Amino acid sequence: MTKLIEYEQASDEVRVVYDDIRATRKTDYINNFWKAIANHPPTLRRTWETLKEVMTSPGELDPLMRELIYIAVSVTNGCEYCIASHTAGAYAKGMSDVMFAELMGIIATANTTNRLANGYQIPLDEQFKT
Amino acid sequence: MTKLIEYEQASDEVRVVYDDIRATRKTDYINNFWKAIANHPPTLRRTWETLKEVMTSPGELDPLMRELIYIAVSVTNGCEYCIASHTAGAYAKGMSDVMFAELMGIIATANTTNRLANGYQIPLDEQFKT
Amino acid sequence: MTKLIEYEQASDEVRVVYDDIRATRKTDYINNFWKAIANHPPTLRRTWETLKEVMTSPGELDPLMRELIYIAVSVTNGCEYCIASHTAGAYAKGMSDVMFAELMGIIATANTTNRLANGYQIPLDEQFKT
Amino acid sequence: MTKLIEYEQASDEVRVVYDDIRATRKTDYINNFWKAIANHPPTLRRTWETLKEVMTSPGELDPLMRELIYIAVSVTNGCEYCIASHTAGAYAKGMSDVMFAELMGIIATANTTNRLANGYQIPLDEQFKT
Amino acid sequence: MTKLIEYEQASDEVRVVYDDIRATRKTDYINNFWKAIANHPPTLRRTWETLKEVMTSPGELDPLMRELIYIAVSVTNGCEYCIASHTAGAYAKGMSDVMFAELMGIIATANTTNRLANGYQIPLDEQFKT
Amino acid sequence: MTKLIEYEQASDEVRVVYDDIRATRKTDYINNFWKAIANHPPTLRRTWETLKEVMTSPGELDPLMRELIYIAVSVTNGCEYCIASHTAGAYAKGMSDVMFAELMGIIATANTTNRLANGYQIPLDEQFKT
Repeated sequence: MTKLIEYEQASDEVRVVYDDIRATRKTDYINNFWKAIANHPPTLRRTWETLKEVMTSPGELDPLMRELIYIAVSVTNGCEYCIASHTAGAYAKGMSDVMFAELMGIIATANTTNRLANGYQIPLDEQFKT
Repeated sequence: MTKLIEYEQASDEVRVVYDDIRATRKTDYINNFWKAIANHPPTLRRTWETLKEVMTSPGELDPLMRELIYIAVSVTNGCEYCIASHTAGAYAKGMSDVMFAELMGIIATANTTNRLANGYQIPLDEQFKT
Repeated sequence: MTKLIEYEQASDEVRVVYDDIRATRKTDYINNFWKAIANHPPTLRRTWETLKEVMTSPGELDPLMRELIYIAVSVTNGCEYCIASHTAGAYAKGMSDVMFAELMGIIATANTTNRLANGYQIPLDEQFKT
Repeated sequence: MTKLIEYEQASDEVRVVYDDIRATRKTDYINNFWKAIANHPPTLRRTWETLKEVMTSPGELDPLMRELIYIAVSVTNGCEYCIASHTAGAYAKGMSDVMFAELMGIIATANTTNRLANGYQIPLDEQFKT
Repeated sequence: MTKLIEYEQASDEVRVVYDDIRATRKTDYINNFWKAIANHPPTLRRTWETLKEVMTSPGELDPLMRELIYIAVSVTNGCEYCIASHTAGAYAKGMSDVMFAELMGIIATANTTNRLANGYQIPLDEQFKT
Repeated sequence: MTKLIEYEQASDEVRVVYDDIRATRKTDYINNFWKAIANHPPTLRRTWETLKEVMTSPGELDPLMRELIYIAVSVTNGCEYCIASHTAGAYAKGMSDVMFAELMGIIATANTTNRLANGYQIPLDEQFKT
């Protein structure tokens, strides 16, 4: 499971994805997440294709914003690996310490009001019904 | 609990907060979330102050980005009320349908990789350790 | 699945549990949760035995405190049914509106600091290590 | 991020909060959570004010009960830091091993019935509708 | 957002996916989930491709088992839509009421022991370390 | 809390359960989870009885399938201990690496569509309403 597939031992199927990760991220570093799911090449391919699409395809959200959203989900779920890797990624994309703190403040507050909404059993306003 | 405190029945303590919500949001509309937690004025005051600070105080994240982060948390947690109200808020702040879809795609993908990271029991890379 | 097993149609196996619920809760009312899981008598029996033990067996926590803890979990998880039923149960056991609001404030705050602890990747203090 | 702000290096803005934590908790120990979020003084101030209010302001729930509720949320969310620190806090406030075990039993059971309520798609009883 | 894209109004890009859903599921019925995410054709395409691959590509898990796993996740997360649709799907694939109940019992128990493991802060056995 | 109760120091009440775990699992190994909750014999007894019933009583789901469902919940919740121990258990019951990867793919995808269903605020199809 946590056998990490290094480039040197990887099959061609896996190397194709590793090459694309390197080219897209402009670094030779393949992190442990990819090396772990590479144990199942279809999972590696599928996951990388999706991540590449949502994080780098042209769109209205800039790359840094996309990382912040990714961190927001990861912090809410408490995924240590993802919090660490995507926070590093966000800093690499230009996040400052102040921006990090603002992000954390919003995540924290949303987790608060989400629970108040549950606990107070609040009926949805007519104007919010879609 | 879901007794909603209307402005007309509200105490001065509550009205002070309602007035600030109206002034800050530039609308007379007080939504059900505020009207519900107004049953406990300290909760109303404290929650509004925090939300106002993280969502509107000057900072590096623009108002629309802050709403997107709020939605990311709410969707991850599955809070119906918050998803509906903050999505409406984001559209009011300039979110387009395409931006909404990009946001959803990132939230969905992050929830995926968060679980793959858990399930494959992936060791944290040295370079991500803080 | 949401076929609700009424006392009149229930097998003896189910009625034994219904009788015990009535005697323990001092009411004839069997709520929909029990009527639904009664479709599978082993689940009904097992779940009632556990709930009865943790909520009513003699111990250091009084009955109302046990309901508050139950609500704290249910609000955190966003389970509508459980929030509604256990909140009603807590009011029946003596919870006041002020106590309810205090409970909600703690639940909300804990959900906040849980995420700050995740996001700031805080190392555990030596004195907290068990 | 996990740069911990020690009292000696702290700004006046941060020291004001540290002093209040020490006075309120009647100990000189400032734990890593506060030292970490102190990297952003507004977050430190705001979080401490809220926590202080919900956990120590006069009310109907005694201090130990408030810690138990805090633990219930933290265990449900799986926040290692919070589980460890608040469990230590509860023991300091008088929780016994038996009370701890009772608390865990209720948390565990609530997480069970929350899911049964979801999975069996149980309709909410009329008498629970608010 | 909850504008549902019917086949008749759909673009060719969307119809290609709808046709594949119909062919794969051997039914003309396109459910609301697909009709909703069809508002963003890349999301529709990507999500369908992934779901089709994990749920129908040849493998060691039979189709019914895959639905049970899907339900286990959905019940744990409390996603009403997914619980309802995948439960219907599992019944269509041969799940019996008894199997449903067994599934629910395991989901419930796992959610219990997950929290006991958190709360008791249990150290991982050497033999489980990978 | 993380005081682990070894067989040699255990009371008769605890040993009865340990003996049953050993007999049922056909191994002398009692893992840390049981040794930890053994600090409270009622919790140990109750938890073992339930786990034994849902995981080993005769039924329609075979033992390996039951472990896969258990893993699905544990991965979704991010419980490190349970992921590690039940993954080891599944391998012992015959899970192959390919099956593990298929399982992970389904868990990941379900966590994705659960959030898309939340975020797109999708109305439940008539035919799924129970």
